[in-house]
Amino acid sequence: MESFRLLSLRYYLVFIMNFQFKVLKKDKNSRARLGRISTPHGEVNTPVFMPVGTQGTVKALTPERVKELGAEIILGNTYHLYLRPGHTLIKKLGGLHRFMNWNGPILTDSGGFQVYSLGTLRKISEEGVTFQSHIDGSKHFLSPEFAIEIQEALGSDIMMCFDECTPYPADHEYAGKSLDLTVRWARRCKEVKRTSNQALFGIVQGGIYQDLRKKAVEKLTDIGFDGYSLGGLSVGEPKDLMMEITEAITPLLPEEKPRYLMGVGTPDDIVECVNYGIDMFDCVIPTRNGRNGMLFTKNGKVVIKHARYRNDESPLDSECDCYTCKNYSRAYLRHLFIAKEILAIILNTIHNVRYFIRLMEQIREAIKNDNYDAFLKDFKSQVSGLQSEND
Amino acid sequence: MESFRLLSLRYYLVFIMNFQFKVLKKDKNSRARLGRISTPHGEVNTPVFMPVGTQGTVKALTPERVKELGAEIILGNTYHLYLRPGHTLIKKLGGLHRFMNWNGPILTDSGGFQVYSLGTLRKISEEGVTFQSHIDGSKHFLSPEFAIEIQEALGSDIMMCFDECTPYPADHEYAGKSLDLTVRWARRCKEVKRTSNQALFGIVQGGIYQDLRKKAVEKLTDIGFDGYSLGGLSVGEPKDLMMEITEAITPLLPEEKPRYLMGVGTPDDIVECVNYGIDMFDCVIPTRNGRNGMLFTKNGKVVIKHARYRNDESPLDSECDCYTCKNYSRAYLRHLFIAKEILAIILNTIHNVRYFIRLMEQIREAIKNDNYDAFLKDFKSQVSGLQSEND
Repeated sequence: MESFRLLSLRYYLVFIMNFQFKVLKKDKNSRARLGRISTPHGEVNTPVFMPVGTQGTVKALTPERVKELGAEIILGNTYHLYLRPGHTLIKKLGGLHRFMNWNGPILTDSGGFQVYSLGTLRKISEEGVTFQSHIDGSKHFLSPEFAIEIQEALGSDIMMCFDECTPYPADHEYAGKSLDLTVRWARRCKEVKRTSNQALFGIVQGGIYQDLRKKAVEKLTDIGFDGYSLGGLSVGEPKDLMMEITEAITPLLPEEKPRYLMGVGTPDDIVECVNYGIDMFDCVIPTRNGRNGMLFTKNGKVVIKHARYRNDESPLDSECDCYTCKNYSRAYLRHLFIAKEILAIILNTIHNVRYFIRLMEQIREAIKNDNYDAFLKDFKSQVSGLQSEND
Repeated sequence: MESFRLLSLRYYLVFIMNFQFKVLKKDKNSRARLGRISTPHGEVNTPVFMPVGTQGTVKALTPERVKELGAEIILGNTYHLYLRPGHTLIKKLGGLHRFMNWNGPILTDSGGFQVYSLGTLRKISEEGVTFQSHIDGSKHFLSPEFAIEIQEALGSDIMMCFDECTPYPADHEYAGKSLDLTVRWARRCKEVKRTSNQALFGIVQGGIYQDLRKKAVEKLTDIGFDGYSLGGLSVGEPKDLMMEITEAITPLLPEEKPRYLMGVGTPDDIVECVNYGIDMFDCVIPTRNGRNGMLFTKNGKVVIKHARYRNDESPLDSECDCYTCKNYSRAYLRHLFIAKEILAIILNTIHNVRYFIRLMEQIREAIKNDNYDAFLKDFKSQVSGLQSEND
């Protein structure tokens, strides 16, 4: 009876709680800020890193493990889940949270970036994008309306507008037209959205052109969204250019809304972009590199298959508090990786994801103590002073 | 200070506790028996199933998960660990228990079966076996003395004698000579063994010939071992023949020692052989089949990739108490498997291993209640009454 009442209460809360964002504190000497996002599935402390769960699972981890690592929100991919197992199936089975047994917040992308990544397998029109599945070559059509329909079926806490990810390089004219299309699509997304408990974020495009990026910010804020993200970055342009645009455009985004830099990035990218006022990040780096045996530590990157770790009794990172570092030697991790054991992937992923989450905890602590500039300086000097342990 | 004392105590106990076996109870209407093995790393309730941890990991599971599933002892492979990462390395790093972070009992095989499996890549002499590594083709030599040296370096709780696994088919003459060699090797194993906290089991060979098997039992019990296993079964001979030999030979083994049927088997093999008085089993079936998406349930086998599970909201096995069955639908498991997600392997392995361990718990409960014959009858009628759900 008691548990039934608790259950009812929880579903009631899910039903009534809408999306909120609060800036809790600004760092005194930088643009870094501390915030909190409230969603029907729980709260998220920002700046936040979102592990990627492309196909309804953060690769190689159970949801309990993801939570234990400190993740407060994960990302799901509309493109992948639409193709397999299908959004109607997931909806029938109670939505993505229930399907994958993750009861925390979920952000879904719109599929825009994925169809962009298909290259010649897609064709863009005013109406939307025709594309071929990477799985079986079958033809599909994704539009702003359909991208929202899919995300509503998945039941994510934060949805993204369907956008055209402007490629790099693109000339000013193409980037301008592409941005206009993304803005028209954003309006259609907002118009068609039916749910009140799912937030919708707009995506700022405009390529590498600051005037276009500014125009995009103006147009999107005119329409009005629950949050804003910078898209079309980290798609091949030089790192300096990405940083330049992020530094210039982030301050133009509304202060009272979360700011999300899509698909970024490495630890040093994240530390840098928090300094520009970014609140949210996602990237496949910790999980993918974990599977490939490339591990992040306080002393730089460790390529675990290297022969130098053969007899190494020490943990991967003596300062890390993760399950892997507390229980296993580098020698064991190397053995598992060389022997192609699945446990290698599990332990490596645990460590890398924890590294990213812990970095965000340290970032938030620094902002709280008004010394983000010192933290940033320290971190950068560490990074530049270090070579990878394997160089 | 407290934890230091506890640690010392634990190492002290490990040091002084030797191998023991006690038959706790015999079933009234069958040869099934309840027992308990004591080892320096803990107790094992028999009849027991030992999950296989070939390369220093039960594939796809953390040791905590293996324990949570109810496993009380796991198996390690001498052949694999000798080749990679090497027994001297493991010894240097504190032994196999510490290396792989499993503090429960471990049984290691002798490598005999693995070199047998190499087929033409090995050559047998009185001294031992010359063989080529399956990894890189390098040449190696394994003898009774070296097999013990390796197992002592690994520090397993139960070691196996180095044997020649008599192939099937083999004529009476060959099987007889092979058995004599195995007995001479067993004597050499016992003579060379130096540790007092590691048990040593003898292996009964003799092919499909009951007279030879009886001779092997006599000779091995003359030498005297801590336990006895039946080897060279489940190597291609008809199932009936395997059962016939197990039924005939098991009762000849000393009552007061554990009896181990190596590499067996399916759930119905296990249930049957417990009835003949077998105490210990090991097999790769639950882990290997888990990776291949073949899952054991009370209603028969489930091949999870089957389209019929696409929309199936129900758990894999509604009576199973495992993490997978408590949290996921068949539809989700199918999705993960089709999408080649690592979590599919993890969840499937969890379920299959739990299925085997739970079967052993039910077997022990039945013996305790003196109704093993009824349990066996029930189980067999279930098995024969059922087709695989996918047939």
